[in-house]
Amino acid sequence: MSFQNPVFIPGPTNIPESLRKACDMPTIDHRSPLFGQILHPARQGVSKVLKSEQAEIFIFPSTGTGGWETALTNTLSPGDKVLAARNGMFSHRWIDMCQRHGLDVEIIETPWGDGLPANRYREILGADRDHRIKAVLATHNETATGVKSDIGALRHALDQAGHPAMLFVDGVSSIGSMDFRFDEWGVDIAVTGSQKGFMLPAGLAIVGFSAKAMAATQTGTLPRTFFDIHDMAKGYANNAYPYTPAVGLLNGLNEACTMLLNEGLGNVFQRHHRIAEGVRAAVHAWGLELCATDPSVYSDTVSAIRTPAGFNATDIVTHAAEKYGVAFGVGLGEVAGKVFRIGHLGSLTDVMALSGIATAEMCMADLGLDIRLGAGVAAAQEYYRATPSIAQRNAA
Amino acid sequence: MSFQNPVFIPGPTNIPESLRKACDMPTIDHRSPLFGQILHPARQGVSKVLKSEQAEIFIFPSTGTGGWETALTNTLSPGDKVLAARNGMFSHRWIDMCQRHGLDVEIIETPWGDGLPANRYREILGADRDHRIKAVLATHNETATGVKSDIGALRHALDQAGHPAMLFVDGVSSIGSMDFRFDEWGVDIAVTGSQKGFMLPAGLAIVGFSAKAMAATQTGTLPRTFFDIHDMAKGYANNAYPYTPAVGLLNGLNEACTMLLNEGLGNVFQRHHRIAEGVRAAVHAWGLELCATDPSVYSDTVSAIRTPAGFNATDIVTHAAEKYGVAFGVGLGEVAGKVFRIGHLGSLTDVMALSGIATAEMCMADLGLDIRLGAGVAAAQEYYRATPSIAQRNAA
Amino acid sequence: MSFQNPVFIPGPTNIPESLRKACDMPTIDHRSPLFGQILHPARQGVSKVLKSEQAEIFIFPSTGTGGWETALTNTLSPGDKVLAARNGMFSHRWIDMCQRHGLDVEIIETPWGDGLPANRYREILGADRDHRIKAVLATHNETATGVKSDIGALRHALDQAGHPAMLFVDGVSSIGSMDFRFDEWGVDIAVTGSQKGFMLPAGLAIVGFSAKAMAATQTGTLPRTFFDIHDMAKGYANNAYPYTPAVGLLNGLNEACTMLLNEGLGNVFQRHHRIAEGVRAAVHAWGLELCATDPSVYSDTVSAIRTPAGFNATDIVTHAAEKYGVAFGVGLGEVAGKVFRIGHLGSLTDVMALSGIATAEMCMADLGLDIRLGAGVAAAQEYYRATPSIAQRNAA
Amino acid sequence: MSFQNPVFIPGPTNIPESLRKACDMPTIDHRSPLFGQILHPARQGVSKVLKSEQAEIFIFPSTGTGGWETALTNTLSPGDKVLAARNGMFSHRWIDMCQRHGLDVEIIETPWGDGLPANRYREILGADRDHRIKAVLATHNETATGVKSDIGALRHALDQAGHPAMLFVDGVSSIGSMDFRFDEWGVDIAVTGSQKGFMLPAGLAIVGFSAKAMAATQTGTLPRTFFDIHDMAKGYANNAYPYTPAVGLLNGLNEACTMLLNEGLGNVFQRHHRIAEGVRAAVHAWGLELCATDPSVYSDTVSAIRTPAGFNATDIVTHAAEKYGVAFGVGLGEVAGKVFRIGHLGSLTDVMALSGIATAEMCMADLGLDIRLGAGVAAAQEYYRATPSIAQRNAA
Repeated sequence: MSFQNPVFIPGPTNIPESLRKACDMPTIDHRSPLFGQILHPARQGVSKVLKSEQAEIFIFPSTGTGGWETALTNTLSPGDKVLAARNGMFSHRWIDMCQRHGLDVEIIETPWGDGLPANRYREILGADRDHRIKAVLATHNETATGVKSDIGALRHALDQAGHPAMLFVDGVSSIGSMDFRFDEWGVDIAVTGSQKGFMLPAGLAIVGFSAKAMAATQTGTLPRTFFDIHDMAKGYANNAYPYTPAVGLLNGLNEACTMLLNEGLGNVFQRHHRIAEGVRAAVHAWGLELCATDPSVYSDTVSAIRTPAGFNATDIVTHAAEKYGVAFGVGLGEVAGKVFRIGHLGSLTDVMALSGIATAEMCMADLGLDIRLGAGVAAAQEYYRATPSIAQRNAA
Repeated sequence: MSFQNPVFIPGPTNIPESLRKACDMPTIDHRSPLFGQILHPARQGVSKVLKSEQAEIFIFPSTGTGGWETALTNTLSPGDKVLAARNGMFSHRWIDMCQRHGLDVEIIETPWGDGLPANRYREILGADRDHRIKAVLATHNETATGVKSDIGALRHALDQAGHPAMLFVDGVSSIGSMDFRFDEWGVDIAVTGSQKGFMLPAGLAIVGFSAKAMAATQTGTLPRTFFDIHDMAKGYANNAYPYTPAVGLLNGLNEACTMLLNEGLGNVFQRHHRIAEGVRAAVHAWGLELCATDPSVYSDTVSAIRTPAGFNATDIVTHAAEKYGVAFGVGLGEVAGKVFRIGHLGSLTDVMALSGIATAEMCMADLGLDIRLGAGVAAAQEYYRATPSIAQRNAA
Repeated sequence: MSFQNPVFIPGPTNIPESLRKACDMPTIDHRSPLFGQILHPARQGVSKVLKSEQAEIFIFPSTGTGGWETALTNTLSPGDKVLAARNGMFSHRWIDMCQRHGLDVEIIETPWGDGLPANRYREILGADRDHRIKAVLATHNETATGVKSDIGALRHALDQAGHPAMLFVDGVSSIGSMDFRFDEWGVDIAVTGSQKGFMLPAGLAIVGFSAKAMAATQTGTLPRTFFDIHDMAKGYANNAYPYTPAVGLLNGLNEACTMLLNEGLGNVFQRHHRIAEGVRAAVHAWGLELCATDPSVYSDTVSAIRTPAGFNATDIVTHAAEKYGVAFGVGLGEVAGKVFRIGHLGSLTDVMALSGIATAEMCMADLGLDIRLGAGVAAAQEYYRATPSIAQRNAA
Repeated sequence: MSFQNPVFIPGPTNIPESLRKACDMPTIDHRSPLFGQILHPARQGVSKVLKSEQAEIFIFPSTGTGGWETALTNTLSPGDKVLAARNGMFSHRWIDMCQRHGLDVEIIETPWGDGLPANRYREILGADRDHRIKAVLATHNETATGVKSDIGALRHALDQAGHPAMLFVDGVSSIGSMDFRFDEWGVDIAVTGSQKGFMLPAGLAIVGFSAKAMAATQTGTLPRTFFDIHDMAKGYANNAYPYTPAVGLLNGLNEACTMLLNEGLGNVFQRHHRIAEGVRAAVHAWGLELCATDPSVYSDTVSAIRTPAGFNATDIVTHAAEKYGVAFGVGLGEVAGKVFRIGHLGSLTDVMALSGIATAEMCMADLGLDIRLGAGVAAAQEYYRATPSIAQRNAA
């Protein structure tokens, strides 16, 4: 195995040196007070990253998918109705999970490339006079299409409709990289993982529950044990877990939050935006289009790039891996073969981004696309030169 | 945090240097062929550690508790009857999980300190003419009491009763440390984790399914998504996962299996037995008793040691941590305060074991127990001197 | 400290993951047989990298500079005459060391940018009828100017002159990256360090002595203790050192040799050449000149790039570090301010090289040089695309 | 290789987790300001550990032996007279180095096991009316015999004799573990390494020069380049080195100083004394004698233990390594075969020390010595129990 080049998949991200060291920890007794000194600061750090003063944070040895299941099984009962839009592979999968757990999902089919349609949410919620809908599901950032959605607008839709449904938000590929406002947006459950904005290896499902969501756990009857937040809360009260925690990853999470908060969340988000803008400048210079249909929904963590009709975009990903040892993301589901994805989140500099852009150019040229070598790189260089990051401005 | 002394908890164990390095891995693309080169050898390695030629191995980013849930939710339906003996905290918890998932558990109450009563299993199975019992649950090694049970005898009980129930075995604190024979014992699902015999950090649920268990997954209707083995199997066929895998831990698991198999499973088990015998010699020299009621059920991975009546055994654990920076295990459930536990599994030498024994002596003396300093150490030294390990004999 | 971007200094190089892990080793007893299992294979590996069947390899906890001192103090006596050409900062420093140790150096002043003049060596050696010259010094690769020299031609000069002087070669920035033929070239002492072609942290002086050089150690009277090869040889015979060895670095060296030899030295050299050619294509596209005056002396490990008159080349290095977090090398001595250097040795891919080239472009543009963004990148991309490495060809 | 048991050699010591991580550092540009942020704090930290406000600290990629050579070659000239007592292998070696560099050593032969005889120093210095003696050499802690000497008494001897000779002290196995007072004792050059009290891998020679020693560098004519402190000082002024520094080790040294100073030097010394006293209690319980002839010279970093006449003490060391995987130190020089050594410096807890004592007992019993198993352990346990460390008292 060679580990020389950065990865450009939309998570897991490149792991900063300090986080690798934080995770690589000797065994400690996870029932000792020492463990509490890792667990509680990590949970508080997550709260701050969520911009929440009230969320209860629970962290499972699992992944974002386990976080979805935590959200559903702790609060809902078989047959409960939920409302969700499907605009990409990850929103699709969460809907699928609902159905497999016997929930009744009203699906808003949405073009892949569009953001979540707040208007449609509002119409449906407004029409649901009996408040049969218990939860509204929203994917903040569709990793498959590189589309971010306006969660504040969904909250507004709920408020306008005067609807009491809970708002569950998948922030797996946004939290820690793009602005997320748990309290301001009235989010009831936020779900994320360790391997994206937190820049850690995969292995943690991280969820935040509002007071309303906590109350719903008293009535939800879906079966659960591993993902039961009451067992978890009872453990936390004793500096412990209901089973064996992933101590090293939690130590890494604590350190990751410290890193992000020390940098300043605003700076973190601006840094992601800057790197993303450079990538988008390259895409434009190549004469290609993003899957995301409008700048207002461009994701700052991942770009899904449409290739010309008749060209299999997956070939780029395969070729980049085989010839250049560089990992991009393939298109998934409806956009399989039509897009390739450049992940640009986490621990990534402009210099690293340029190497990814240069690689994509070589791949496209190798595969016969009409791409001028250096064109995308030059566009990104121009943007990066002219738009120093906050850290660069501070250093100057 | 100081990490100088070894831990003597019954898992997570001390992590060997090479496994820490195997886990501490830069990010790779988990959808690339490279990942398959980690995943598949790891699964094959687990098969060999289970002594199985037929088990399908599934590995989840989770823990042993998640493995229990995987076993139940993939094969059973609400209301299904299962048979389980309760002889300690971990068998208790698995039973509790069954009940929370709506299963009907027939519980064989068994004294804590005894092994699982094969006779009682046989009687109940024999009486179940309608074969309402779908699964028999067995905890191979009760970590709470330091008691191992005879799984072969349970298989014999099933066979004698001519009963078709599946046999689910919790081998969390036995597999990789004590003999486990998936095929020979006709186990249908074996459950373990990464943090015991495999000497890794916590974070993996590892399960093996027999053909019969695989067939049962077609009919089981308990809801599941995160722990769905069909999603997992579909992923594996593409060198992938249904979500993001814990790549570093899988790389560590692959390496751990290689280590265990290179040493030879027989040697591994003998090594554990030797370390355990030294600890037991010390306990005897102290004039104390094990919680395990008979040598035939002594666990080679953990010893639960009864302290005199009126003494709070938990004080030893607290004192050891605070004064000497050494972690032992407390008593749980029925034996809380009555026992303290010395874990002696995984990467532990005789020399390290002696430091644990010496610490326990100091603690007991500090707390006023009538223990002669050096007595337990001397007994263990005598045993270790006279009973060289296979590696020591080979080196000589 | 941030460690995200690769370094482009001409050593220390980027350290491969596996070598970092090999160096990061717990303490072992350096007087135990275990140490011999590290030391001797490391020495044998170095022999093979030197293409020598006869060299005695000595490894000191020091650096290449210590290796120079080892060469001089073990074989020469105060007042001894040596012959050396000065064509850059590193040849200058070795000459300076000779003078400080009381040696009489005949210096062949050579333009910085030229290779060592074999003709001049031959003339002087031919004129030295009394064989007062005891040693001929040669810098295989001048790191300051990016110039490699033809050591075989120097051997030829010695042979033509029928001169018995020893041939001492500084291969610090060539060995392990460019072809080096200890036996074929009749090298008497080769000097290198750990931090260049071996891709390790600095901390080892590595020298090879021919039989003739070994014989000279019997007569050399310069004082020495730390660098005494007889003490070292005596230690090696007992799997030990005359003092405490740098065990982790030696373990890394052993692993580094294994890596290089497994890849195949020819492939290693070709890989370096390919990366270097891409950098040189970029330099050409920028309309700039190398310090090296002729393609025959272009170094495959480092390029010193001349900037236009009136421009301070050091500004590029400072700017790259401050704004982009990228390390290039400054000009030294005569070429200070006139060149900047891009190191392209060790663990570096084409993709990484492109990020360095792109950074240099941004810096030059930022500082007002007339450089078209993307121009150098495109030239390098075109070269890398069209000239796959051996590994890329094998993978295809 | 297995790394499970602690080592009990008198250095290199067991490396604390945090120091391993500090040393294991990606490559940075060692000519950048970033390097200065490692170098200068490390040097300041060393000053504080030396209890000096005036010493100039120089750090070479080398070992303590290189530090000896630095002391001699920077300040002395061929033929200079130095005064040194020989009371063990390490004082012997420094004397040998002097002789090999053409110095005229007046040797005070001293029984191995005794401390340096301040009286004899005083007599000789008093008799040296012409002040031909330029330097007085003293080994603060003889690692071979486990004997510490009174450096303050030597200073007193110099003062009483009104002699201007410089005082050079080898503190390799004392500094950072036992009290060392550079300023108060009027030390002119102190020499140490990274691998003892600083708990790092070997690879650094660390020296402190007084103003008087700095002045002597102007006149000393012994040849030197690698170890030239003027080159080094010139480099430091530019945040750099005259050659490539061992950046990771320097980073580790900086962290090690921070650890020691945060703990408090007094606490560090008391901690070493406590661990040593426990080992000595065990030796006493075994009925054996230390090589050190008087409690006033007992070393707190290493104990050399005499075995009965006719017994080869080296067998214990060999046996411990082969059978138990534990490293002790052999006897050297005059006491080869007569003593074995237990190193008890650096990162070592009472619990770890007990495992070393227990191992020594098993070895001695295995080899037929009349040792009661557990006897030494019990004596040490009793001492450790009754004498909590400062950290233990603070935690209580």
